[in-house]
Amino acid sequence: MPAEAQPGAGEGMSAGDGRKPLLRALGGEVVWPPPLWLMRQAGRYLPEYRELRAQAGGFIRLCTTPELAAEVTIQPIRRYGMDGAILFSDILMVPWALGQKLRFAEGEGPVLEPLRDAASIAALQPEALRERVEPILDTVRLTRVALDLHAPRVALIGFAGSPWTVAAYMVEGHGSRDFHTARGMAFSDPTLFGRLIRTLVDATTDYLVAQIEAGAEAVMLFDSWAGMLPPSQFRRWVIEPTVTILRNVQRLHPSVPVVGFPRLAGPLIGEYVQRTGVSTVAMDTAMDPRFAASVVAPNVGLQGNLDPPALVAGGAALEAETRQILAAMRGRPFVFNLGHGIEKVTPPEHVAQLVRLVRSGG
Amino acid sequence: MPAEAQPGAGEGMSAGDGRKPLLRALGGEVVWPPPLWLMRQAGRYLPEYRELRAQAGGFIRLCTTPELAAEVTIQPIRRYGMDGAILFSDILMVPWALGQKLRFAEGEGPVLEPLRDAASIAALQPEALRERVEPILDTVRLTRVALDLHAPRVALIGFAGSPWTVAAYMVEGHGSRDFHTARGMAFSDPTLFGRLIRTLVDATTDYLVAQIEAGAEAVMLFDSWAGMLPPSQFRRWVIEPTVTILRNVQRLHPSVPVVGFPRLAGPLIGEYVQRTGVSTVAMDTAMDPRFAASVVAPNVGLQGNLDPPALVAGGAALEAETRQILAAMRGRPFVFNLGHGIEKVTPPEHVAQLVRLVRSGG
Repeated sequence: MPAEAQPGAGEGMSAGDGRKPLLRALGGEVVWPPPLWLMRQAGRYLPEYRELRAQAGGFIRLCTTPELAAEVTIQPIRRYGMDGAILFSDILMVPWALGQKLRFAEGEGPVLEPLRDAASIAALQPEALRERVEPILDTVRLTRVALDLHAPRVALIGFAGSPWTVAAYMVEGHGSRDFHTARGMAFSDPTLFGRLIRTLVDATTDYLVAQIEAGAEAVMLFDSWAGMLPPSQFRRWVIEPTVTILRNVQRLHPSVPVVGFPRLAGPLIGEYVQRTGVSTVAMDTAMDPRFAASVVAPNVGLQGNLDPPALVAGGAALEAETRQILAAMRGRPFVFNLGHGIEKVTPPEHVAQLVRLVRSGG
Repeated sequence: MPAEAQPGAGEGMSAGDGRKPLLRALGGEVVWPPPLWLMRQAGRYLPEYRELRAQAGGFIRLCTTPELAAEVTIQPIRRYGMDGAILFSDILMVPWALGQKLRFAEGEGPVLEPLRDAASIAALQPEALRERVEPILDTVRLTRVALDLHAPRVALIGFAGSPWTVAAYMVEGHGSRDFHTARGMAFSDPTLFGRLIRTLVDATTDYLVAQIEAGAEAVMLFDSWAGMLPPSQFRRWVIEPTVTILRNVQRLHPSVPVVGFPRLAGPLIGEYVQRTGVSTVAMDTAMDPRFAASVVAPNVGLQGNLDPPALVAGGAALEAETRQILAAMRGRPFVFNLGHGIEKVTPPEHVAQLVRLVRSGG
């Protein structure tokens, strides 16, 4: 894996500082040009991924076969030499490991047997989680060994979905524009919904700790549907559970950066960061980086937030959007990323253009 | 139509002030208890609507048959005595009036023949719009006569979609979680996309002015997908076109309140209000009312923003959410509303509970 031979890999380090640039920035240091990685960088826009996925025999199979999942995790590093490799997996592997039926239907997205009542929530199997995620932890171990050998400047990022977002899928049973059922249960039966959230807080904590102990050097909490909640519910179902997870993970592993991604939190991003104590907060595409910088303490990292369609467009649009973000973030602890997952139709050469641009520091 | 006989209709007026409470609040006066209306209050949660729609023979037919559309507009007023009646129509009636093929497929939402190139954008027929929207203007006239006769405290609200949101549908061809094609065109061919936006700025201006001249006493611009854009694109495709529409509408009708609804604009709501000069800004479900109050000038109205699932839930959840909004808005020019359209599964008696709560002032 010739990642280290890639021009630019590992740039941005001060001479004599041996720590990985991504971990320094996620931990609150200013590193410039900023380190970068891209959400869903291991994915369908890469021909080598599509080829491997076609052979793997299903998405869950791919996520639970360590050799394949590790290879997919490393593919974008080999091509572009990003500063971070994110574990190839899915936020719904936690419900799957809790015993909820899950399948990934081609072209249709994930389908879960929906949880709608106390009995189905009580039937979840938290005691089974640790064993069921073992193949995913093996992926972490394998990937870490490969990176240490071939790309020692690249940090390995583990992740999980946040309780609110994962619960929304578990109750709804599938992706949704509105998650009416889940939002309805949160209002009409907060006791029952709270029981599901507590199960997920514990499972997520254990899962992240296990990823760290298997070799993940930073972890990220994806709360893709945080922005669906009004402020009172955002505090109850997004902030409070995240506070508990962070406290428990950081008690055991105080030096591992935790990235929070409360997507579409809007003006509540400042309160989220202050209450949860995340090391870095990821900005979604709609977030004005200058606003985030004005409400987030200067020793907390920011990550983001290029709009994926600008990466599809490439050329002048990509350059203008990228330069604006870099200009707004100069002087901050910052990690360049997208504000949402990379699109399937992204031309791989546009990713190369973006990496060059960011490596030049704007 | 016994709306005036409803308890609470017209409450909140100072003695001796003959102007409608909704228009006073939308124009920037403090009126307490606040006037209220609900987005999609004329709609599928009402049995009398479902009955009428089943007889109408299609959604476009319903929107372009003035007697039916006026009846639907008035139905919720008759039941609940809200302070505003919003024209029953759809934001896609503008593309339809510009000659783009449109159908509303049952259970599937709107389907448009997508615009993807210069030729299809050039083929739009702005010169035909005024004649094609004539039945909608007749609905405005009819509704206004009925309200003046039977519910003289209720204000009639006209509306249109904002250019960005309407263009997103026109390019995509249907509703979408991501509107990838439209966002892609805005980045990759801003000249072409700008031509579509300019056509829509002119059409929307003419359409709103015509609604006002037919009897609408306030107008609202729905920008449902404003939050999909990163800040640079939000300024270009949301704020700039809205500035032009407002300037032209207000030049002709300076005393008619204009409500802007830049959904999911997040922290950019302050800049949106300041630049566009809207009389009132509608807050989406994710907006913290206290944040909005802190960045919007005190003489600009705020409207919103109960989460629709709380109205579905009813009971204690509805009461708690409603009281929080009222407490945050006390002392501001404010109109109570939802933060998104009412859900089809909303029990009609929960709407009655909400109206009583708001009429009590929290």
